[in-house]
Amino acid sequence: MVPHLVTALTGPINELEQRVLDSMPAIERWFRLEWMEHTPPFYTAVDVRNAGFKLAPVDTDLYPSAWNHLAAPMLPLAVQAAMAAIEKICPEARNLLIVPENDVGSTFYLSSLAQLRRIFLMAGLNVRIGSISPDIKKSTTLELPNGESITLEPVLRTKGRLGLKNFDPCTILMNNEMTAGVPGILEDLQGQYLLPPLHASWSTRRRSTYFKTYEEVAKRFGKLIGVDHWLINPMFDKCSDVDLGSAEGLEVLTSRADLLLAKIKKKYKEYGIKEKPFVVVKGDNLGRGSGLMTVRDARDIAALVKNADNAVLSLMQGPQQFILQEGVLTNERMNDAVAEPVVYMLDRYVVGGFYRVHAERGVDEDLSAPGSRYVPLAFAESAQLPQPGIRPGASAPNRFYMYGVIARLAMLASSYELEATDPNAEHYT
Amino acid sequence: MVPHLVTALTGPINELEQRVLDSMPAIERWFRLEWMEHTPPFYTAVDVRNAGFKLAPVDTDLYPSAWNHLAAPMLPLAVQAAMAAIEKICPEARNLLIVPENDVGSTFYLSSLAQLRRIFLMAGLNVRIGSISPDIKKSTTLELPNGESITLEPVLRTKGRLGLKNFDPCTILMNNEMTAGVPGILEDLQGQYLLPPLHASWSTRRRSTYFKTYEEVAKRFGKLIGVDHWLINPMFDKCSDVDLGSAEGLEVLTSRADLLLAKIKKKYKEYGIKEKPFVVVKGDNLGRGSGLMTVRDARDIAALVKNADNAVLSLMQGPQQFILQEGVLTNERMNDAVAEPVVYMLDRYVVGGFYRVHAERGVDEDLSAPGSRYVPLAFAESAQLPQPGIRPGASAPNRFYMYGVIARLAMLASSYELEATDPNAEHYT
Repeated sequence: MVPHLVTALTGPINELEQRVLDSMPAIERWFRLEWMEHTPPFYTAVDVRNAGFKLAPVDTDLYPSAWNHLAAPMLPLAVQAAMAAIEKICPEARNLLIVPENDVGSTFYLSSLAQLRRIFLMAGLNVRIGSISPDIKKSTTLELPNGESITLEPVLRTKGRLGLKNFDPCTILMNNEMTAGVPGILEDLQGQYLLPPLHASWSTRRRSTYFKTYEEVAKRFGKLIGVDHWLINPMFDKCSDVDLGSAEGLEVLTSRADLLLAKIKKKYKEYGIKEKPFVVVKGDNLGRGSGLMTVRDARDIAALVKNADNAVLSLMQGPQQFILQEGVLTNERMNDAVAEPVVYMLDRYVVGGFYRVHAERGVDEDLSAPGSRYVPLAFAESAQLPQPGIRPGASAPNRFYMYGVIARLAMLASSYELEATDPNAEHYT
Repeated sequence: MVPHLVTALTGPINELEQRVLDSMPAIERWFRLEWMEHTPPFYTAVDVRNAGFKLAPVDTDLYPSAWNHLAAPMLPLAVQAAMAAIEKICPEARNLLIVPENDVGSTFYLSSLAQLRRIFLMAGLNVRIGSISPDIKKSTTLELPNGESITLEPVLRTKGRLGLKNFDPCTILMNNEMTAGVPGILEDLQGQYLLPPLHASWSTRRRSTYFKTYEEVAKRFGKLIGVDHWLINPMFDKCSDVDLGSAEGLEVLTSRADLLLAKIKKKYKEYGIKEKPFVVVKGDNLGRGSGLMTVRDARDIAALVKNADNAVLSLMQGPQQFILQEGVLTNERMNDAVAEPVVYMLDRYVVGGFYRVHAERGVDEDLSAPGSRYVPLAFAESAQLPQPGIRPGASAPNRFYMYGVIARLAMLASSYELEATDPNAEHYT
């Protein structure tokens, strides 16, 4: 069930794996105690990159789609986690409303929605799907290739509640990134749970805030298991109000990229790593697919901007906020194609994952781009679980346990992030 | 992964399956609310019998063994449930002591112990195994055929705590039925969690108390989904102080068996069932393998007692407490052998199960006997989960969802049972 992988696992990563395995009871206890104090995001997907010498999350999605790419045998794991989550949030729950993306577009997304509906149905809820898109004016049924169908119904806002005709949910599950901002229809709901909260959307989130929080989590975790946190933490820098249409803007980005590349080079030298450092430029507040360009040499930036395709170019218009993130190579491959694991969590549990595979991209490029494929990871085998006594580097199960640990660190960072940005929290004035 | 089954699913059972599926969200919500008020036993295994026309639990084990017969892909489900259980009981837990049966005997039991250890190790605990057997005077390592080993260490009782040399557990997990009574070494522990509590052992438990409680649960559940509770509830009668060595004793049992057989006959007539009713005589306070005889005709009792083998006969010496339980046929078969599902739960979650198969036993006999085999049930496939829209009787997954529901009812009854028999509860004086 575990896809055949070609990995180049030498040097520090094996040490890291050994540390993680040796510290398993301490790690699990640490997470348990963290979850006593902090609420995990309702659901989370984390892109993990394994460079062989370094393993780090490069993006954390709080409105995950692609649930349909999780391996079928893992469904019970997701259902069990959903049951635990419901019990904690609203045990008397009967009805759940899922709010999908406004543009449900492809069969791909609809299949993910169908899988999400199945998970919560099996956890014991009446589930319906309510669109907040102005285009959905009446109940619309869309067929899926496997014979299933999805019925999108227009939401109704009445007094302080959001629902559908003859359907009053106690919980509303957002599967909508709200990149264009939070619609008023979702504000000031009374007595309904809106999950995740509105400030988990990209209208509030900033990658720079998130990765700062992650850095703190990584430092504490590094101390716990006795490793340099850089081994699990991508360095980054933030560039505010940069207009890449201007010479000044290009210059700012170029000099900052140069600085970050130098810092990476220093670290590579420290660990005797021969790879070429690179930096990924991402939108600070853009949703999925926000990786705008890969910079291997800061002097290339002007050319990269000039040659960017129109979609990317439109995201760089006018003064923008960017982050420069230390690029993490992926040394995982499926056949000849470059692959990166994406780990899915529901409540505080790892419930599965898949490999995002892109045949036409390099080891230092963003794989979340048109042309990518998805290969389910059989986490539900003993895959998610470590096998003590097996030597590091030799065991796919151990690898996946480590991925699950890193993904949970990324999730924990989001939990801190959401606490810090909560508009209703007392410390926020 | 799901073993090929021959079932004879006609008549009321299909109605029951339909009801269970139609009521799924209501059922799950009902369980959720029950678990808010009542604590599930720490772990539970339930023998379920499917007669085609009736589906009922016939025994509930609060110290389950045979964990090694759960399918490997379900391990993550058990680990996740164990994590949830630990988090609830003692989130700061580091060390878990498992106390096995005094006589670890076979490789069979040791393999189960190894699997149990694996589950809690992977949930993030340091696990060691401490024997309370007077025969274990020093650390003893036993090898398993798969290369694993089990080290049994003698327990140490110091002040108010139980532990091992250099190992102070915060939680003690009993995997010992304590049929000979509760040893003093386990009493009056201070600040340690003993799971399940001592009154879950057969020195306190009575089948008659348990099945009375189950009957109440079955009635409420029957009302919830609108079915006759008899369809999920085996009738029973209790015989106290009966000496089967005396003519009076035999007469009492005979007349009570006659009465119960008549009640079953009446129910069979109501449902147009052509099968021959039978009754199983069980010890009221005996552990595993307590099914003493199958009675098809009350007049056979004297002969059955006379011809019982020595092991069974020794359990019937002197005045004893018995229960007469309505026999539930099993219409499940693997190839030609009679089979019955055993459902495993950890905390409130179904985590797997297997078929107990016995080639030399009949559809109306106890399969928990020498010569039985075990076939893992792939609950971890979508097996445990219902598939709405599939017609009843046609879908193995739906069957297993129903088994999981019945097993959870049996577990809930034990939860009530443990509350009622708790010596520390205020209502118990």
